[in-house]
Amino acid sequence: MSAAAAGQVTTARPDVALHAAVHAFYARQIHLLDHGDVDGFAATFTADGRFFHHPNGRLEPGRDNIATAMRGFLARAAAAGVVRHHWFGMFQIDPGADGTIVVTYYSLVSHTDAERKVTLEPTGVVQDVLVEVDGVLLNSSRTVKPDTLRLR
Amino acid sequence: MSAAAAGQVTTARPDVALHAAVHAFYARQIHLLDHGDVDGFAATFTADGRFFHHPNGRLEPGRDNIATAMRGFLARAAAAGVVRHHWFGMFQIDPGADGTIVVTYYSLVSHTDAERKVTLEPTGVVQDVLVEVDGVLLNSSRTVKPDTLRLR
Amino acid sequence: MSAAAAGQVTTARPDVALHAAVHAFYARQIHLLDHGDVDGFAATFTADGRFFHHPNGRLEPGRDNIATAMRGFLARAAAAGVVRHHWFGMFQIDPGADGTIVVTYYSLVSHTDAERKVTLEPTGVVQDVLVEVDGVLLNSSRTVKPDTLRLR
Repeated sequence: MSAAAAGQVTTARPDVALHAAVHAFYARQIHLLDHGDVDGFAATFTADGRFFHHPNGRLEPGRDNIATAMRGFLARAAAAGVVRHHWFGMFQIDPGADGTIVVTYYSLVSHTDAERKVTLEPTGVVQDVLVEVDGVLLNSSRTVKPDTLRLR
Repeated sequence: MSAAAAGQVTTARPDVALHAAVHAFYARQIHLLDHGDVDGFAATFTADGRFFHHPNGRLEPGRDNIATAMRGFLARAAAAGVVRHHWFGMFQIDPGADGTIVVTYYSLVSHTDAERKVTLEPTGVVQDVLVEVDGVLLNSSRTVKPDTLRLR
Repeated sequence: MSAAAAGQVTTARPDVALHAAVHAFYARQIHLLDHGDVDGFAATFTADGRFFHHPNGRLEPGRDNIATAMRGFLARAAAAGVVRHHWFGMFQIDPGADGTIVVTYYSLVSHTDAERKVTLEPTGVVQDVLVEVDGVLLNSSRTVKPDTLRLR
């Protein structure tokens, strides 16, 4: 194999502050959503934040639209009688030259029902663009690609 | 949405040493438990460590009580013929003014049986209080809230 | 319990750069594999990298052998009509005196099929030896121990 360098992972000067901040960001963001604080969740996006869930189409930008969509999402979970948790993991953090940070990660969503049964939603890959505004990390855009799209 | 600030996540000066130490703490603690070292697991608690699993009630404080409870827990897994793994994730780390560290996270427990079947225990949210004693991170208290309690 | 010290987790001077680098390494490595880039995956190993999957035996060392084995692994997933994701977690990072880094972690593999059903492969524990070569973190050896081996 001649092109070994292509897949190599450099460890030179990892940005440890960014690493810790990104992990903290996702923990806090997803606890807000899973505990029903849709406004708090929406507030982790920029004022013109964009959310695109393949293949359902792109939401109109903005926190109000994101909050409304999440409220519907949570209402369906409540109607189904399950507690949902989002498990985000395997974060690839790529700082861009323009100051944005691209984070690509896996998403797993668990459903626990009153009979103690646990099922999983189809996995997916999410790609976010994060920005830092006055020392606060915000989600500028989120693109969710369910893995089922790769099986059509 | 007027109160956007409430849910925002500050990235100013993340405590990178604490981030790395907390992740290391949980990895080490849970490997000890999942590999059957209940005394090693109990030793990650303070001498007066407290463990409260809703709604079963609170254990009497102390490492011996924690070790005994864990020994029973592991014996049931062995009797059931499964290997259990704890997956802790989405760690929210909140340093307090008094030097304690509150960590709130999700817990998933997998069971793998001899026929290669994998099932999951009901998910839950755990809240720990950690303290640092002579440079060693210890669990002062653990409160486990299974999600099934939210469905009653 | 007299030997409390044995299980204690020191937090004195955690190597935060190594922590961030190891997490980044696994995220990048496993995205390569799960997206079908077997050569990129193999390139995260040293030229004489070793891969041992109990109880199937040890591969001959080297990136070409690792790439070939992974290509077969991915072909079986494709034939089964599932998208696989590897979830590595609970990383125990142990720097050795000789400059190598031993990382012991849990592995979960999810399968999502076209009917949106999600199943899990038997969990396992993986132990890697990592080395740093010219500022690049590389996998010198990987040993995978499926949990089903503990149930025989």
